[in-house]
Amino acid sequence: MTSVKPLPQYLVTRYHGWKATTFAENHAWYRRLATEGQRPRAMVISCCDSRVHVTSIFGADQGEFFIHRNIANLVPPYEPDGNQHGTSAAIEFAVTSLQVAHLIVLGHSLCGGVKGCYDMCSGNAPELEEKSSFVGRWMDLLRPGFERLSEGSDEDRQTQLEYEAVRTSLDNLMTFPFVREAVEADRLSLHGCHNDIAEGGLKMLNPRTEDFEPV
Amino acid sequence: MTSVKPLPQYLVTRYHGWKATTFAENHAWYRRLATEGQRPRAMVISCCDSRVHVTSIFGADQGEFFIHRNIANLVPPYEPDGNQHGTSAAIEFAVTSLQVAHLIVLGHSLCGGVKGCYDMCSGNAPELEEKSSFVGRWMDLLRPGFERLSEGSDEDRQTQLEYEAVRTSLDNLMTFPFVREAVEADRLSLHGCHNDIAEGGLKMLNPRTEDFEPV
Amino acid sequence: MTSVKPLPQYLVTRYHGWKATTFAENHAWYRRLATEGQRPRAMVISCCDSRVHVTSIFGADQGEFFIHRNIANLVPPYEPDGNQHGTSAAIEFAVTSLQVAHLIVLGHSLCGGVKGCYDMCSGNAPELEEKSSFVGRWMDLLRPGFERLSEGSDEDRQTQLEYEAVRTSLDNLMTFPFVREAVEADRLSLHGCHNDIAEGGLKMLNPRTEDFEPV
Amino acid sequence: MTSVKPLPQYLVTRYHGWKATTFAENHAWYRRLATEGQRPRAMVISCCDSRVHVTSIFGADQGEFFIHRNIANLVPPYEPDGNQHGTSAAIEFAVTSLQVAHLIVLGHSLCGGVKGCYDMCSGNAPELEEKSSFVGRWMDLLRPGFERLSEGSDEDRQTQLEYEAVRTSLDNLMTFPFVREAVEADRLSLHGCHNDIAEGGLKMLNPRTEDFEPV
Repeated sequence: MTSVKPLPQYLVTRYHGWKATTFAENHAWYRRLATEGQRPRAMVISCCDSRVHVTSIFGADQGEFFIHRNIANLVPPYEPDGNQHGTSAAIEFAVTSLQVAHLIVLGHSLCGGVKGCYDMCSGNAPELEEKSSFVGRWMDLLRPGFERLSEGSDEDRQTQLEYEAVRTSLDNLMTFPFVREAVEADRLSLHGCHNDIAEGGLKMLNPRTEDFEPV
Repeated sequence: MTSVKPLPQYLVTRYHGWKATTFAENHAWYRRLATEGQRPRAMVISCCDSRVHVTSIFGADQGEFFIHRNIANLVPPYEPDGNQHGTSAAIEFAVTSLQVAHLIVLGHSLCGGVKGCYDMCSGNAPELEEKSSFVGRWMDLLRPGFERLSEGSDEDRQTQLEYEAVRTSLDNLMTFPFVREAVEADRLSLHGCHNDIAEGGLKMLNPRTEDFEPV
Repeated sequence: MTSVKPLPQYLVTRYHGWKATTFAENHAWYRRLATEGQRPRAMVISCCDSRVHVTSIFGADQGEFFIHRNIANLVPPYEPDGNQHGTSAAIEFAVTSLQVAHLIVLGHSLCGGVKGCYDMCSGNAPELEEKSSFVGRWMDLLRPGFERLSEGSDEDRQTQLEYEAVRTSLDNLMTFPFVREAVEADRLSLHGCHNDIAEGGLKMLNPRTEDFEPV
Repeated sequence: MTSVKPLPQYLVTRYHGWKATTFAENHAWYRRLATEGQRPRAMVISCCDSRVHVTSIFGADQGEFFIHRNIANLVPPYEPDGNQHGTSAAIEFAVTSLQVAHLIVLGHSLCGGVKGCYDMCSGNAPELEEKSSFVGRWMDLLRPGFERLSEGSDEDRQTQLEYEAVRTSLDNLMTFPFVREAVEADRLSLHGCHNDIAEGGLKMLNPRTEDFEPV
């Protein structure tokens, strides 16, 4: 463990500040979350991007959202092959153990993972085609989405591909038997959103039009 | 897309509140994060658990942390086999593209994933041994940690196993060539933490003692 | 250079301590700030007073704030006359080169500069009226603020004058074309604060009431 | 005041954390600093740059340093012309009112202001030659320093110019009668330092050799 270092002091200081204020003011609730367990109403699948603040945007507090964050908020298809699938494990836990009522896939503008996929599928990022590229192989999940893009400027098409990432995840979610079953039994509903970083916008996938529209 | 539903109204309402207040007061910063891209100082790997609020605990705001959340904050070992590895992709992106300076693995008390692993390894959760159990296969990553547990009550041993989850992730991180290289070149430092939900505690892995100690 | 002396040893000792601890634990980040340049989110204009710790109050670390400190946190009006204007140069650099998103004017209680201005304008500090008094001439910037004070005890009026110093700076900031332009384009927001030294208080200028209110 | 906005919430939150911890633990000292006034041992003149943390480097706390920060830590020569000189006012206040015992000029590597001066004097930044450029006119103070640079790479010469900024400030300080008098009466000592951002280095001006040497 010689590679491990103490936490930077500024984070320790801020933590002590949180403990003395936010935590102190909510101790009863935190303790109850501990003794009774979490009971989140929704699972959110969003991107790791530092500019996406799921809890801020939705005014959520401790205990409300079960949050999985990965590159480009992607859900792979159901593949029970005995290998490790972190995203599938998170979904399984949320749906079968926690029994969340909502599952929200939250995309966002200027997504670096989506851009990588766009460049790769356009032939401009050969390094992402390498077998050893984890980002490239992860973004393979979005290749079929790239094929569906309509004409337009690169910028437009990247935004379209961000939408495709959300649609792909929602489609793949329905390949999981436990998700489909919960949705069909009306125990779970799926939602697709897209957050515009610069303008603070939020669009929602309209199930009728299959387009993203401002909320 | 008939399975998709509009976003629950309470979340739409909260979003509009965020847009009119927090976003409006920080528009300049969000726009700049959009035009210039993110430059997070740290990546945090934490659990999906709804009771873990990474940004609150560390007083962080938009743009500060690149956050990956999965079940039990686990990092698998380096395995460039061309398959999809969401966690490895997130780490690759953070370290090689964003070049974060810190990588913090944040465990927590009462972790459902760790408890599942504990039960499974104790022979009390045969359903998690199924090939088709995503949670079970994901928690296989922590089996070697279970073997290292010392005697004690079940509760103690589960806490120990939460510590092992952080240690395992830190060890596995060093199997990634680009992580090891960055650490050895002093471009990246690794940190291990554990958050106590009920009491708001924070412990830090002391690299010398290899134990978790209150910050 | 015969007038220059070596640094006092106690500071050298403390520096070596910082180097071996805080610096060592954050080397990766500091190096990155060096290679990629700073990208502070905010500029803070505060007083030189040794009792005002901008970074502590706001839990900020290396790279977060571009800080200008002068007597009484004053901003002079825009005056592009070819002479040396240190404060204006700092603002120009922050707004046009660094493109900070926030500009915070931070006043404080018991400000010696403001007290000097108060005494001078009350006729009790003739030495500050001298042409050669740098402090007096600098505090001339706040004379119009003195005229606006309402009745009250000397102590009350000095606090009022500290508030006027913040208001004056904010008003003068808007006389700089590049500040006004950035504010109007929503690329920059201005904020006014006042820190009470004895009680650790923080008030914020409420743009609607134009009064200072506890945060 | 319609241009003013409330303080960003993350800073308010962090402030409350500081108030509840650091402030609460030091209330007695802060109150005493309030009732008895500040009595800083040293004045530090440093750059506004967000990467320079004067108090961290020197392990200083509330009440220890009277700090003036401007672009490139420059002191103009004594010029009692009745105009506004913010830096001169800060020095006058520190030396004649507070009677600090040390005056430290702290330069740093990768200084944007010094780089601007270098480019301007090399003919590569005509915009800084404009009468209306506050940064350009402020950096005029360092033109004589540019003339003294010896041959070398651009990078070497910029570092040399950073040293010249410290030397120029120290020279100019001695043109202030109240500084010279205090130095000659051994009531004040002057010091020159240079901080390397990337490596956390600290060099000190050796009065005998007139060179900067590691402390």
